Amino acid sequence: MNYLEMNREQLLALHDKYTQQYQSFKLQGLTLDMSRGKPGPEQLDMSEAMLTAITSNADCYTGKTDCRNYGIVDGLLEAREMFAEILGVEPAEVICGGNSSLNMMYDTVMRAWVFGVAKGEKPWSQQGQIKFLCPVPGYDRHFGICEQFGIEMINVDMLEDGPDMDAVEELIKDPQVKGIWCVPKHSNPTGVTYSDEVVRRFAALKPAASDFRIFWDNAYCVHELYFDRCPQLLNLMEECRKLGSEDMVYQYTSTSKISFPGGGVSAFASSERNIHHAKKLMSVQSIGPDKLNQLRHIRFFKNAAGVKEYMKKHAEFLRPKFEVVINNMERYFGDSGIATWNKPTGGYFINFNTLEGCASKVAQLAKEAGLILTTAGATFPYGKDPKDCNLRIAPSYPSTSELDMAIRLLCVCVKLVSTEKLLAEYKD
Amino acid sequence: MNYLEMNREQLLALHDKYTQQYQSFKLQGLTLDMSRGKPGPEQLDMSEAMLTAITSNADCYTGKTDCRNYGIVDGLLEAREMFAEILGVEPAEVICGGNSSLNMMYDTVMRAWVFGVAKGEKPWSQQGQIKFLCPVPGYDRHFGICEQFGIEMINVDMLEDGPDMDAVEELIKDPQVKGIWCVPKHSNPTGVTYSDEVVRRFAALKPAASDFRIFWDNAYCVHELYFDRCPQLLNLMEECRKLGSEDMVYQYTSTSKISFPGGGVSAFASSERNIHHAKKLMSVQSIGPDKLNQLRHIRFFKNAAGVKEYMKKHAEFLRPKFEVVINNMERYFGDSGIATWNKPTGGYFINFNTLEGCASKVAQLAKEAGLILTTAGATFPYGKDPKDCNLRIAPSYPSTSELDMAIRLLCVCVKLVSTEKLLAEYKD
Repeated sequence: MNYLEMNREQLLALHDKYTQQYQSFKLQGLTLDMSRGKPGPEQLDMSEAMLTAITSNADCYTGKTDCRNYGIVDGLLEAREMFAEILGVEPAEVICGGNSSLNMMYDTVMRAWVFGVAKGEKPWSQQGQIKFLCPVPGYDRHFGICEQFGIEMINVDMLEDGPDMDAVEELIKDPQVKGIWCVPKHSNPTGVTYSDEVVRRFAALKPAASDFRIFWDNAYCVHELYFDRCPQLLNLMEECRKLGSEDMVYQYTSTSKISFPGGGVSAFASSERNIHHAKKLMSVQSIGPDKLNQLRHIRFFKNAAGVKEYMKKHAEFLRPKFEVVINNMERYFGDSGIATWNKPTGGYFINFNTLEGCASKVAQLAKEAGLILTTAGATFPYGKDPKDCNLRIAPSYPSTSELDMAIRLLCVCVKLVSTEKLLAEYKD
Repeated sequence: MNYLEMNREQLLALHDKYTQQYQSFKLQGLTLDMSRGKPGPEQLDMSEAMLTAITSNADCYTGKTDCRNYGIVDGLLEAREMFAEILGVEPAEVICGGNSSLNMMYDTVMRAWVFGVAKGEKPWSQQGQIKFLCPVPGYDRHFGICEQFGIEMINVDMLEDGPDMDAVEELIKDPQVKGIWCVPKHSNPTGVTYSDEVVRRFAALKPAASDFRIFWDNAYCVHELYFDRCPQLLNLMEECRKLGSEDMVYQYTSTSKISFPGGGVSAFASSERNIHHAKKLMSVQSIGPDKLNQLRHIRFFKNAAGVKEYMKKHAEFLRPKFEVVINNMERYFGDSGIATWNKPTGGYFINFNTLEGCASKVAQLAKEAGLILTTAGATFPYGKDPKDCNLRIAPSYPSTSELDMAIRLLCVCVKLVSTEKLLAEYKD
């Protein structure tokens, strides 16, 4: 029954019921963490053979390159080839780095900030208050980078097929707008994969700022949950090539959620011109990345097809976890009208919305009963969810039985806070 | 016989002789590279067991930490402990990173540039033309960082016991001077280890700029060639503690020349206050470094004593190479008066000085005969050796027989260029 249509007595009865259920959860002394999109131990165990992909001195060579020694600032050719294939770009458009694509994004912003995005472009730091567009809800660590550099963030709504492109096209008329953060496939946290039309509109953007860049964080490029209905993301770089707008794209991905988050390989892809500019600056920052670990990844996965095949095994671990969450939500919320959520086809998150003004209180109650959720508001710039209704559910790390418990607790918290709100606002 | 005392005929005869010798070298079509301080393959082979230091899922844990997963921005505690012991500081004063300490130095400069060295300190980028002191000859990659950021570099002479501290103490009265690059042990390229007095004078510096920092690149902290006469470097951090000047020190090292340059671990050490400031900024840049590789290093070396013991094996490979160079130089130059060089007790370089105005020509001739040396001038800021006399010899990579050939060629080039110079300047 829809809570919004209940009378005062019905709401009071439910409020009592959920208060009691919440109290009994509290007595159980749970300690559950669903705050971050961490692979579960059973997923990491799958990659055990990565640890022994290189075991002898002779293994450390690829062609004439001794991967143990210094050099190759943009990473091993074979690693660049593998990521190029995954991202649908050319190897000359890829730089392969250490274990953190976040580090690569941060460093890209840093280079633009201090040196400018290209020869002849003014550093962002010398252009007054610059701005980034942030489709919301989005990834808190993207917003964190802007906040550290003092880049003003402007919210853009995420729609069912990607960011609100009407808004984007309007906002980029401001020359102070220098970038936009995108997770184009299995978006964090909404699960949306941008439609072909959205991708085409991105490629066709005509920003007022010549140093405007699309930060295309393709973190979940091969992270499907259902292979019979996996969405296809149009290749942004290909669309840009048709229009000559390749310089506008900075693309990122990594093996953090493929092999090991604490021992993977990252990649940065862009136009050859941008890559040349980045490499020149990077050659002063480092002599080269960890090539042995890149080699481990090449030996283990062989190529993009190897990676994609491998991801099917990940999906087998992840699917039941997502399904526990979704099934519980359907069971507990049904037609209650107090919550909405998505059913992702890939990625690491379920996007959950409460009634307005309830999310922080839900997270707080959950925390007090031992369940850590991603901080309410974290999916918005400056941690401020204007409607205080969004919660990001990360089901990958806990076991299915822990998840079952966690979601039941979460549902009780949502019902408790919702009935409280409805009672407070109740009018006869 | 001293060339400087020869008459015209003697010089002419020698010039002819070395011209012929040079031509015959040229006909041999050599391809030798002594440009960089790269470990030789036999040194890297020694670390084969590092590749199998972690082989199973169970190996990947240290305590409750799953090193395969996300987190720990400052690196594994055990890695920080090992580097703390090596550097003689506290684990809380260490951040452990990826394979490149150069990257850590660069990022330190970047953070100072964009955000300032501490809360309340103005970013370096907002203080007009700032300057760094550069003991010369020094490490080209240090100078490269300053050049990229547009930091003006001021040469300071390297003396037998470290930088000219009278000059340093005078120059830091300028509040625009924000830093100094030091390789305090087995210095690159002079081989000097700073004396106790020099280290104490560093700790006691009273710079006009409150945001002045000593970049203490302790790259060769355990890189002895002769263990019976290895120099002791006074612990700068300890000296600073006595005077309360710990915030002035940024220290760096890595296992690049211990395990693998292309797969090692780096460390940054400073006061707890500085480390806290850096960590806070870094936590936005990355979720954490490659912890699996840090764990490999801990399992392989166990502790600082393990590292030091291990370095004795490196020395066995390196000593004969250094000795081939030194012996050849003694044999070929004897009392000729046209060249000076040091006999390092550790590190990776031999510092070689020609007569004034000869170094670039020597490097050019060597190159034309197939021997690549570090570019003449590279050991000075902006690549400008004011006397054009300094050459950095890196004997670690070639085999001893290649080295023998290379040094004989080098000597011929030096003699050829020197006799040419002496003839041109000859006065009866």
